[in-house]
Amino acid sequence: MPARLDLNADLGEGFGAWAAGPDEAILAHVTSANVACGFHAGDPSSIDRTVALAARAGVAVGAHPGHHDLRGFGRREIAVDPAEVEADVVYQVGALAAFARSHGVPLAHVKPHGALYNQAARDAPLARAIARGVARCGRELVLVGLAGSEPMREAAAEEGLRFAAEAFADRAYDDDGRLVARSRPGALILDPSAVARRALRIACEGRLTSIDGAELSLWAETLCLHGDHPQAPAIARAVREALESAGVVVRALGR
Amino acid sequence: MPARLDLNADLGEGFGAWAAGPDEAILAHVTSANVACGFHAGDPSSIDRTVALAARAGVAVGAHPGHHDLRGFGRREIAVDPAEVEADVVYQVGALAAFARSHGVPLAHVKPHGALYNQAARDAPLARAIARGVARCGRELVLVGLAGSEPMREAAAEEGLRFAAEAFADRAYDDDGRLVARSRPGALILDPSAVARRALRIACEGRLTSIDGAELSLWAETLCLHGDHPQAPAIARAVREALESAGVVVRALGR
Amino acid sequence: MPARLDLNADLGEGFGAWAAGPDEAILAHVTSANVACGFHAGDPSSIDRTVALAARAGVAVGAHPGHHDLRGFGRREIAVDPAEVEADVVYQVGALAAFARSHGVPLAHVKPHGALYNQAARDAPLARAIARGVARCGRELVLVGLAGSEPMREAAAEEGLRFAAEAFADRAYDDDGRLVARSRPGALILDPSAVARRALRIACEGRLTSIDGAELSLWAETLCLHGDHPQAPAIARAVREALESAGVVVRALGR
Amino acid sequence: MPARLDLNADLGEGFGAWAAGPDEAILAHVTSANVACGFHAGDPSSIDRTVALAARAGVAVGAHPGHHDLRGFGRREIAVDPAEVEADVVYQVGALAAFARSHGVPLAHVKPHGALYNQAARDAPLARAIARGVARCGRELVLVGLAGSEPMREAAAEEGLRFAAEAFADRAYDDDGRLVARSRPGALILDPSAVARRALRIACEGRLTSIDGAELSLWAETLCLHGDHPQAPAIARAVREALESAGVVVRALGR
Repeated sequence: MPARLDLNADLGEGFGAWAAGPDEAILAHVTSANVACGFHAGDPSSIDRTVALAARAGVAVGAHPGHHDLRGFGRREIAVDPAEVEADVVYQVGALAAFARSHGVPLAHVKPHGALYNQAARDAPLARAIARGVARCGRELVLVGLAGSEPMREAAAEEGLRFAAEAFADRAYDDDGRLVARSRPGALILDPSAVARRALRIACEGRLTSIDGAELSLWAETLCLHGDHPQAPAIARAVREALESAGVVVRALGR
Repeated sequence: MPARLDLNADLGEGFGAWAAGPDEAILAHVTSANVACGFHAGDPSSIDRTVALAARAGVAVGAHPGHHDLRGFGRREIAVDPAEVEADVVYQVGALAAFARSHGVPLAHVKPHGALYNQAARDAPLARAIARGVARCGRELVLVGLAGSEPMREAAAEEGLRFAAEAFADRAYDDDGRLVARSRPGALILDPSAVARRALRIACEGRLTSIDGAELSLWAETLCLHGDHPQAPAIARAVREALESAGVVVRALGR
Repeated sequence: MPARLDLNADLGEGFGAWAAGPDEAILAHVTSANVACGFHAGDPSSIDRTVALAARAGVAVGAHPGHHDLRGFGRREIAVDPAEVEADVVYQVGALAAFARSHGVPLAHVKPHGALYNQAARDAPLARAIARGVARCGRELVLVGLAGSEPMREAAAEEGLRFAAEAFADRAYDDDGRLVARSRPGALILDPSAVARRALRIACEGRLTSIDGAELSLWAETLCLHGDHPQAPAIARAVREALESAGVVVRALGR
Repeated sequence: MPARLDLNADLGEGFGAWAAGPDEAILAHVTSANVACGFHAGDPSSIDRTVALAARAGVAVGAHPGHHDLRGFGRREIAVDPAEVEADVVYQVGALAAFARSHGVPLAHVKPHGALYNQAARDAPLARAIARGVARCGRELVLVGLAGSEPMREAAAEEGLRFAAEAFADRAYDDDGRLVARSRPGALILDPSAVARRALRIACEGRLTSIDGAELSLWAETLCLHGDHPQAPAIARAVREALESAGVVVRALGR
């Protein structure tokens, strides 16, 4: 059986007059779109446009809920009450699902954003709050979280949701399999062919080399391609071409 | 056939630490709840609580979308782009519908809030934008608007939505059937028995006396009872008792 | 020399249509007002009103800057960048100072709010960022912080600011001199005469008994009286009367 | 005596993670910077950076207050209460002045933004509210408004403020001297040499040709150069070079 991988990107991350990244160019190369829901970025008009673009491109539409924090783009960790996060997730996923339905496509998955994603990867009550919020919107939704996060994997299982482990081919990992902080030199990998080689190793071997040279086991069903910088489309294209040339089936999670 | 009327109230209009009005007391007397959706008031936690309370009370749950204007509580007229309003409505109604479904009740109706309600009552493109947004979320939703507003009635018809005309028993009307501005003395009627008498005339005669003594034709299917002041529960009780004593069937719009 | 104490309260903590607490009643009893600056609560109109009320009452006007978090009322800890906090403080204190000047009074002090206050009490880089922001607005400003917080005391000293230690007569302390979390039974003391007795011990002995019975040394120049609940004015009156009856000079920090 | 003109640009109009335009490149060519104050765009960190850049470049620093409307970038007309606008102006100008002082420069002028600017140009109570807010922050501040606006000119005079009339060399005017709506073809002039020629006519003749060919009298002390698009620096350079080659003294308003 051939290896199989979903390629996802965070899209629609503008707000009002402030534009998002090169979303249309990215959509040509990915199989899943995580659409910002208005809490860390995105507004109803941008959601409408982005969902329409993704639907037209045949890309699976997912919700990308974040902390209620436009000022910090959802990247600042906040000491949130899990009960509030559960409600925040129902709200954001519910809004996105309405746009998806009205564009004739189902909402396929939910991937938390930024600090919410990182906090939930290590905090079981928060992971459960997210999973409960998603389950309240529909048990057919796939919950995407950090590969190796036990809290997220278990929370999805408890709520009867399919969990999809996510890896990052353009971010360095440390010897414990955690993402290296963006501030450390070498944390971000911007060379398209280097990112493509890493994507291939993840897809075909389930392994990756850490920033300090250790061999890591890294099993993932979906790969995040960052969409918010000018080189993003070139990287996305390189990754997709490398995967398909190697016979990897590049396909959205639920298909 | 006996006269029939729905009694609605705007609920869940707090935000974060700021509390809403006496929602539980009001819910004992009304048949429809218009729940604030987070744009003029309300946050996901307050929506969750308010929808749960309404569902438990057997009160029909509706969405109460407004302008994106917490600072002005959605009461300031804004020169909005109809395309943005359509998306704002899909977003807010979609979010509310997710909460309603997860509490085991259908979303029953949509009533725009404050300045959005008033602007749409006289502005056909805006009314059409609202109706399109509602229809994108489901043609079974009832669209509530100002009794006598042609733009709202026509917009609902164009989108295949049922329109429900709303009257205000606790607000004075002028000779042209428009609501008298809150700033004019006599605009607000706070005596429970006076409000109850006016509600009865609307329900049984389809008529009301204007602030200047003219007889108005005022046909309505639903009556708004304001819920944001301390006398609100007493007024709601008086209205409901008066209507039921007179044999009026007090029942939610879609039931 | 008689004991001397400032009594302060957090005021102007509404937003838009949502009202603040019983500010006018509190102003009759305190000597310093900490006015919400718009980030966790407050808007320009409420600031204008609150500063005018405080100036008329002869109460010293201070700024009460918080995290940019209306949703959480500034009570949620946020992993903020100290450089951002410094700018946030300049912004909020600068805005407040303009209102104070235009009402003919100087801005007297700055007291951080909620989570910002608590985080800075134990986090030296954050305390320094706050002190730098205050110093950029004027070295005559008094910086108010938690009694016993070395980071705040040192940060004020480094920037050449006077530091005023604050105690809470209506909150229980643990054996290490920290505030007991609000969720623990007994954490909040609402009986006016009990709060007054505690205030007297702080003012005259510099001591207080912890929730578990230990004797604490608690030296403070200012006492916070919570202003956001209905009993607040009664507590404030009882504290002020007890202090003045015992000969304590109740006076604002800089006077 | 040689003709004299100020060149101003709106700067610092990002928010959080969303970047502003090419501010540094523009600062090389203008004499006055209007810095976004956080209501329509800008946050404390962007204000700090932008004020520092302008101070270092020797460009006069002004405040650019707008409606409380991040979602609409302050471009949507809002039915605001003049009393609220007065407080909004004190708040925004006060915050900006604190940053200017702490960077060692005075705040020089105030120019309202977007819809607030346009509404005030024709609405006397709103213009007076703005002028009162500015005067409360300092009567040495210059109030910038649309050339030809009687409400703004009179409001400044009533409050004892110097008024500076502003013209737009890159926007078309109609026969009545009003700006042509951006949506009409020809409303925006993007050719650097065409903008420079128009700037020269305004500076040296006090005249301009309307979009329909009429000769307009257009007397202005300051010219707005838009800073939010890629050609902006080239246009700014062309205008400045043309003015200086013709002997026009290009200098900030108060110098």
